[in-house]
Parts: sequence; structure tokens; C-alpha cells
Amino acid sequence: MIPELSGYMKNVRSKCPLVHHITNYVTVNDCANICICSGGSPVMTDAAEDIRDMVKISNAVVLNMGTLNPRTVESMVLAGKVAKENGIPVLFDAVGAGATGYRSDTAARIINEVRPDVIKGNAGEISYLAGVEGCVRGVDSSGATGDMSDTVRELSKKYGCLVVSTGKEDHVSDGESTYVLSNGHDLQGCVSGTGCMLSSVLGSYIGANGPKAEAVLAGITAFNIAAENASKVCKGPGSFKVALLDSLFGLGPEQLDKDARIRKV
Amino acid sequence: MIPELSGYMKNVRSKCPLVHHITNYVTVNDCANICICSGGSPVMTDAAEDIRDMVKISNAVVLNMGTLNPRTVESMVLAGKVAKENGIPVLFDAVGAGATGYRSDTAARIINEVRPDVIKGNAGEISYLAGVEGCVRGVDSSGATGDMSDTVRELSKKYGCLVVSTGKEDHVSDGESTYVLSNGHDLQGCVSGTGCMLSSVLGSYIGANGPKAEAVLAGITAFNIAAENASKVCKGPGSFKVALLDSLFGLGPEQLDKDARIRKV
Amino acid sequence: MIPELSGYMKNVRSKCPLVHHITNYVTVNDCANICICSGGSPVMTDAAEDIRDMVKISNAVVLNMGTLNPRTVESMVLAGKVAKENGIPVLFDAVGAGATGYRSDTAARIINEVRPDVIKGNAGEISYLAGVEGCVRGVDSSGATGDMSDTVRELSKKYGCLVVSTGKEDHVSDGESTYVLSNGHDLQGCVSGTGCMLSSVLGSYIGANGPKAEAVLAGITAFNIAAENASKVCKGPGSFKVALLDSLFGLGPEQLDKDARIRKV
Repeated sequence: MIPELSGYMKNVRSKCPLVHHITNYVTVNDCANICICSGGSPVMTDAAEDIRDMVKISNAVVLNMGTLNPRTVESMVLAGKVAKENGIPVLFDAVGAGATGYRSDTAARIINEVRPDVIKGNAGEISYLAGVEGCVRGVDSSGATGDMSDTVRELSKKYGCLVVSTGKEDHVSDGESTYVLSNGHDLQGCVSGTGCMLSSVLGSYIGANGPKAEAVLAGITAFNIAAENASKVCKGPGSFKVALLDSLFGLGPEQLDKDARIRKV
Repeated sequence: MIPELSGYMKNVRSKCPLVHHITNYVTVNDCANICICSGGSPVMTDAAEDIRDMVKISNAVVLNMGTLNPRTVESMVLAGKVAKENGIPVLFDAVGAGATGYRSDTAARIINEVRPDVIKGNAGEISYLAGVEGCVRGVDSSGATGDMSDTVRELSKKYGCLVVSTGKEDHVSDGESTYVLSNGHDLQGCVSGTGCMLSSVLGSYIGANGPKAEAVLAGITAFNIAAENASKVCKGPGSFKVALLDSLFGLGPEQLDKDARIRKV
Repeated sequence: MIPELSGYMKNVRSKCPLVHHITNYVTVNDCANICICSGGSPVMTDAAEDIRDMVKISNAVVLNMGTLNPRTVESMVLAGKVAKENGIPVLFDAVGAGATGYRSDTAARIINEVRPDVIKGNAGEISYLAGVEGCVRGVDSSGATGDMSDTVRELSKKYGCLVVSTGKEDHVSDGESTYVLSNGHDLQGCVSGTGCMLSSVLGSYIGANGPKAEAVLAGITAFNIAAENASKVCKGPGSFKVALLDSLFGLGPEQLDKDARIRKV
């Protein structure tokens, strides 16, 4: 039984959640803009001096280790802890976990010290975190050997949180229910940071709805249907990204329910 | 009596002022590109080791605390002081002043130690700086209670500088004359960093014309008319930003004078 | 005798080289996306803790000092050294060399300690590095007095590496052969970071083909023909950048050979 998704979208648009990001400097502008187009209000600040005040007024926190350094890692841990102390949901995007020792160690530290509500990564990163054989090349997945439905379920049970694995198909599990999502378009793989952008969209969705599997399903599906729409009006990766922002901004709740391709496994 | 604005635009385009920025990593690329499209030449460098040499060859300095940290705050203060010692105009964009203690303290420090020629912010930030009840949510204004014409005039008198407050209507004061500007389009609120981009445009305008109220009126109006033009050819926030760059680049001086909506109060 | 270029493009697209960047925060997103559109796979990480692992799995390293600071300068030197120890080609983009003391000193240090395979800059920067009278204004060249063919040849001989000077015409030398390239479009000068973007394209080309003059000629020409194509479908600098990404992504190898304008001098 797949839940109706449009209600979660409507909540985002009516509440306009404030989504605090500590993210990478490569894709941060696209993260901010897609957050707005999803219905949220982004704020990016990474100074330890600034975090406590800003997190407390936020509705969700997104931690993304795309370009990490010792200063920002401390800030991510602090922001995550302050959020959890205040009941604010935290999403952690484990960019490059498994690719380098520093990223693997940092991912372990954030997961253990913060206990995020949502752990997200590509198939290679999530496989690595689950202790399943995977392969991460730079910050891109180059495949996973296991069944990702099993992998996200196991990782979800291990940490008691939602787990999202992205790729040609996306997998979501809350430990009990596991879903396979198959909306989206190949051009998403030709634009830097579409994974980071999805994290920002999910920040809006869990900020407005709480860290529920259904909210995550709605956020991923909205983003991926917007990508399908964008692919029809673009001429390549440059115009695709522009159209993706436009498409998510203009996406109607009825299309979200009508075109969602989700199956429970 | 509203001044003719086109002369200020022509000065920017003929002089191509070098505008040194210390700004945030979220919107910095858009700041660089809009600076070019306005007729200026942007340079961004924030290392203390680099600032003295670079500021001295600049025509204006833009300080924007969108993503501040202790290292870049020191750099902002240094850049501002070097500029003032060399007679180079400084614009300070007080992003998030009033939202967190760190931002409020930093804004106070920059204003007191640098004495910028232009202080700019949204209605919430400017109200906070003026000691008037305002409201800042993250880095976005969520309204101000006072009459912004009075607020910008008071703040201008307090510090002896130009003050710019942005929003649905923009307010500019040099302490003597106060103006309300009403060009622009709602889509500006749906793109991250349009306020930052305006600061970069104003950097070009004060770099070429000096820190005069008329130059600021011309820069704001050019940006906002470009936004109106862009809104007519776009499909959403993504294509709006692209069109905004194109529109400012192609804006004719005659349209600037013809379509300006400015009243003196 | 000008070499056939299309083979080098085909190598990039079939090998999809991983290109490690330490670059500036102004243009980094465009660098990542143009790298993808050229056929490569970009990764950006600048923490010393992360560099050794990431460089070792890379096929090329691009060092760009657009926004340098003491931490990232150390990271650039480390990344360059690790790459050279592992036989991985390094391109150094000497942004702003000659404009400030800090940039000039850093460029000298990177060249001497890393010994990059390719040194790249605009005419002013390359002239400065060659000890020829040039002029750098901010991070943009404002012309060079010498014959750039001579300048790139001398600098190439001095350091035993490829040298690329960009501008209205581009010059490439390996010390033996020197080439003048004349594809491209004026709008490239109206977008921030087209020089940085070219460095990322060249990272893909030397990553897939090795640091050969022919690979560099192919990369520059592909980028510049894409710019010519983009100029025909855009309305200004904003839409030009979007179209440039689309155009490079879609560029056919046959157009690369047919439209190349290269002469050996």
C-alpha cells in the first residue's frame, strides 16, 4: 500500500520550513535554490560561533560532507547535536564514504555522535556503511554488489533511522517497510550535485512533516518527477539543471500522486 | 526631483570598475557574474595575505557576511580598513544581522571599525541595526514593524553613510534625502542570493561613480528593471536567474530612465 | 602539420577520467559541470587529511589558485606532490599570478615544488611567470606586451612542461612545437570562470591521454568550438554559460576536426 504523497508536499509549501545546511562549496548554490523550489527556506552557515543560534530556529538540518575539513566536521557534529537536543530532524548525506579513510572515519563519527534521523548516500556509499561490498569512485558510486533493498533495511535496523540509497532506482527503508522508487532521468547523472540537491529537498520534507518514510518518499518522488519533466524541455546538462529548478517549483500535487512509481518490497 | 540615472550606468560601462568582494560561498558565483553583467570586473579573494595588494588596485569593496567565520571576518575588517585608508568606497551587506548573536556582533564590529560608505540589508536586518523592532528568520527578512523610510534615514544619520533597505519596496537614504524604489519582481524572492547580487551591482555603481545616493538609486533600479524584463521570458526561478543576467547585460540606458519608479519622501 | 584531434576526445569519453580539483569557491560548480560535459568525472576535496587517498585514485589533478589561503595552498602543494609521485599528470592554473605578492609567491612555490605537467594562465599571468612585461588586473589579464608565441615557448623550455596561454587567441607550447589557436567567442570574456572551466576540461583531456600537447590542443579546441556553438543560441552571458555546458556535452568528434583553427608557428 503506497501512501498518498501530495499531502506531504502541501505541508512543505504551507509551512516553508527553515532548512539549515552545512554542505559542500561545490553544489551549495544549487542546494539553496532547489530548497526554495521545493517550498523550503535554506540557510547555510558553518561557523561554530553561529551554529547554536541558527540551528535552534531551524526546522531541519542537512549535513553533507562533500567538501569536508576539520573545521567544518566539528561544525557538522555540533549542528547535529544541537538539532537532536532540540527535537529537530537531521539528515546526513555521506558523500564519499568508503572512498577515503578521512571520509569513512568522519561518516562513522557523525553517525555515532549525532544519530541522524535520515542517512542518505548513493548505492556505493550506503553499501560501504552497511558493511556490504560496494564500490565508491571519488564521490560517485560505481555500483554495489548486494540487493539494495536488503542493504537499506539492514542499515536502517542497525541505527534505528531512515535510510535512503539513490541511483537508477532509489531505495528507502525505516527498518519495517522498504520501498523501491523508480522515477527519475539519466540526465541527473550528468549534473554535479543532484544527490546533494535531493538532500536539500528532503530537508524541506522532513522539516515540514517530521522524519517519516512517507515524507522521504514524497520528497524523492517530487524531485525525480521534476527531473522527468525537465528532461523533456532541455538540450543537455546545462539547461537540464535550469529546467529542474523550474519544474520542481511548478510541480502540481496531483502529478506527484499520479506519476509516482513506488513499490513496497 | 528624481535624478536622471542613465549617466551613472554609462560611467559603469565605460570605467569597468574592479570590485573586490569578500562574500559568501553560497551565492559568490552569481555575484561575480552579475557584477560583469552590470559592467564591472569582479575579484574575490579572502586571504589576509592577499587583501592589501588586491584592495589597493580595486575601485570598490563589497563585504557580505552571508557565510562568515573567524578567518573571513578578520579579512573583511582588514579589507574594509585598507579600502578606507585608500579612499576606496566600501559597501557592507549585513546578511543575517539580528538572526544570531555572532552575526549581530560581527555587523557591529564591521560598522564600527570600517565605517562603510553604504550599509545594506533587508528590512529585518536594517531594522535590527537601527534598533527598531524587526524580524529576521535565518537570513531572510520576515518583515519589519516600523516605517522603513524613517528607519533608513535614522540609520543613515547615525553612521553618516548611505543606507539601503531591500524588499518589496527598497528604501535609500543619505540622511538628507530618502527615496522609495518600487521596481522589481516577486521572483527575486524565489532565487537564493538576489540580495547579494544587488550588492555586487552596487559595488560596480559606487566604484565608477563614488558612494552617492544617485549611483545607488541607479544600480538598484537597473537590477530591478532587469528582473522585470527577465520575469517576462522565464518559466520559473531557474530560468529567471539566467534571464536576469542576460537582461542586466543588455539593459539600455534609455529604459533605465523611462521605467524607473522612484519617489522621494 | 596539425594533428587529428577527435581521437583525444574519444579517449576522454571512453575512459571517463577522474579529475581531482583543488580550485576556487567562485567557479567550482561550473568547473565540476564542464568536467562532466567534457567526458570526465570531477572530484573536489581540499582537506590535507583527504588528499592522499583521493589523489591516488585520480587520473589527473587540477590546481587553481583563484581563491587561495594558507590551508589550501598547503593542500595544493601536497596534492601536486602525491600526484607526481604516482605518475598522475598535474595542471596548474596560475590565477592572478603577478597581481599580488601572495599570488606570485604561491605560483612560484607550486611550480618549483610540484613541477606541474601543464602551466596555464591568461596572457598577463603567463607573461609574468616568464619574466616578460605583462599586466594583470585583479584576476583578469589586461594584455601582454610580448609575442605570446615566444613567451609560451620560453616558459615551456624553462620548466620542461607544457604551457598554455589563453586569450583572444590561445597559445600552446611544449618547448619544441608552438601552436596558436583561434577558436572561441567574445562572450567567454563575459562569464566569470571560463578560464577555470577550461582547466577542468584540460584535466579530463590529460587524464585520459597523458600530458601531451595534442591532448591540450584538443581540449582547448573542443571548449572553444562549444563556445562558438553556444553563442548562436544564447541571449547574453547567463544563457551563454548554460548553452556552453550543453554544447560541449553534445559536441561531435567530426566537428572538432572540421572546425579547428590551429596553426603551428
